[in-house]
Amino acid sequence: LDITGLVSLNEIEAAAQRIAPAVARTPLIAPPPSKNGRHAGRLLLKPENLQPVGSFKLRGAFSAISALPPAVREKGVVAYSSGNHAQGVAYAASRLGIPSWIVIDEAAPAVKIDATRSMGAQVVTAATDDRQPLAHAIAERQQATLIPPYDHPDVIAGQGTIGLEIMADCPDLATVVLPVSGGGLASGVAAAIKYSAPRVKVVIVEPELAADTIESLHRGRLVRWPTAHRRRTIAEGLVGQPSALTFAHLARFVDDAITVSEAQILDTIRWLALEAKLVAEPSGAVATAAYLHNQERIGCGTTVAILSGGNITPVCLQEVLQRPSV
Amino acid sequence: LDITGLVSLNEIEAAAQRIAPAVARTPLIAPPPSKNGRHAGRLLLKPENLQPVGSFKLRGAFSAISALPPAVREKGVVAYSSGNHAQGVAYAASRLGIPSWIVIDEAAPAVKIDATRSMGAQVVTAATDDRQPLAHAIAERQQATLIPPYDHPDVIAGQGTIGLEIMADCPDLATVVLPVSGGGLASGVAAAIKYSAPRVKVVIVEPELAADTIESLHRGRLVRWPTAHRRRTIAEGLVGQPSALTFAHLARFVDDAITVSEAQILDTIRWLALEAKLVAEPSGAVATAAYLHNQERIGCGTTVAILSGGNITPVCLQEVLQRPSV
Repeated sequence: LDITGLVSLNEIEAAAQRIAPAVARTPLIAPPPSKNGRHAGRLLLKPENLQPVGSFKLRGAFSAISALPPAVREKGVVAYSSGNHAQGVAYAASRLGIPSWIVIDEAAPAVKIDATRSMGAQVVTAATDDRQPLAHAIAERQQATLIPPYDHPDVIAGQGTIGLEIMADCPDLATVVLPVSGGGLASGVAAAIKYSAPRVKVVIVEPELAADTIESLHRGRLVRWPTAHRRRTIAEGLVGQPSALTFAHLARFVDDAITVSEAQILDTIRWLALEAKLVAEPSGAVATAAYLHNQERIGCGTTVAILSGGNITPVCLQEVLQRPSV
Repeated sequence: LDITGLVSLNEIEAAAQRIAPAVARTPLIAPPPSKNGRHAGRLLLKPENLQPVGSFKLRGAFSAISALPPAVREKGVVAYSSGNHAQGVAYAASRLGIPSWIVIDEAAPAVKIDATRSMGAQVVTAATDDRQPLAHAIAERQQATLIPPYDHPDVIAGQGTIGLEIMADCPDLATVVLPVSGGGLASGVAAAIKYSAPRVKVVIVEPELAADTIESLHRGRLVRWPTAHRRRTIAEGLVGQPSALTFAHLARFVDDAITVSEAQILDTIRWLALEAKLVAEPSGAVATAAYLHNQERIGCGTTVAILSGGNITPVCLQEVLQRPSV
């Protein structure tokens, strides 16, 4: 942390060194020219769905776990999540040869539990409200370390490595568009970009139905939306809310914020599969959706949209493919 | 051509130089560990579905067109195809700023015709048997050059650039698995590999229902299967048959040949979408299918499977997603 409390460029560069052995160096992908001319500008995709766990979350998890002192690390790690963070922690722990305990909501679908277990984790199920205390209890009993999904500088620095890669691969970068939820990805990437290339515009995206962070940025303070309210969106990966730490990064580094509708998210999943040949989960499609529907606002030059993950259910992908072409 | 009539390593390296401005340098992608342990060895995917036209065909088309003398090239190019080769030629011509005429089967779906037209080509439709003579007539009238889909050294050299990239990105390469149809891809890649790394095994794959090339290799001479017979497979991109030129490359350079069933192809499209997050067309999935179902035969070490294209219809992808998980 630098004196302002924000993650520094040095920390992001150190995270890039640490994660290199386990994390895919994703390329930038140019989707084919769209027949309806929706992206007349230049769009490139950063396909984090191609990570071994299907999302960018591996970066932050591996960054945080690999930064632990060896004597601490070997005791193992704990996370509570039924989503991409859990799989990131489980896979990272398995790669580092240490135990992991993942506390998953007892209502989570069996496929998610199986997937996390197949990564080598010990899965414990609990009621939603019991997950956090149970995770803390396991950490204490096992002397293991709790790995938070976004509220930690090493996690933020790990996600920020995406920003370093984008800048290295795209010398004429004008804009980066990316989703925001807890804010780990947005904080890390925005910091990496602004420290090195302050003129590159950073645009965050939220579903209209879970736009608490955008409202918070407009008001200049964290605004909380009721959980049930945020859960209306199909982008279930984006119902998190920033912490004080991530909000400080967003307030400092973000240039613009765009919301997308549920229909825009679904149309974009379809477009990404059929045109870019990439499978996106709803949360993974919002940045591309924002680009496709706000090109004038985003402006000219080369835009990189981060496709943050691809862990969609077969049923959801099927339904998206049944939608009429737009 | 070297004295044996085969494409040389120099020609493939020259093609790599020519195509660099227009063709994506695709990465190698490690799919996530499979929960049912089907790929205990190390599998990497070469995702040619991420090319701007959704398939590897752009490489051969751009290689051949860019090798034409400028005075010849500016008159334009002609192709007859309703598939990926047509889109490759149309896109390459558009990138080089020259006209293109594509003769498409009048029975082709409107989306294919629209897609080719959107790449900047002039589309002419004709009955199946009239396509070739019409293409020759257009070439003569316009003084344009006919670009064949595989039976040309510059096309073969262009497809062979995939082999150079695989070797550069995978120092411990043991095996390359790839689909065969007309044989342009297999000839170019096998030549590139065997000239540089003769111990790397090259395995070609065909659907059981269109396995004319494998029968030809076993007999040591080209065997023709009736068109209607070959068209039984869902992998409509693999119904072509080698020419004398491509067969000579295959006979010289290929180590092994595997067939896959229709069910294996469909299961693998599903697996690629849900696990690797990559959309494959049936022809694009056969190499991965062969790997997943023949690991002992393929052997240990690192295998690269070429995912040759992703131009699947929404209906086909939907049907695949409805299949029970295997």
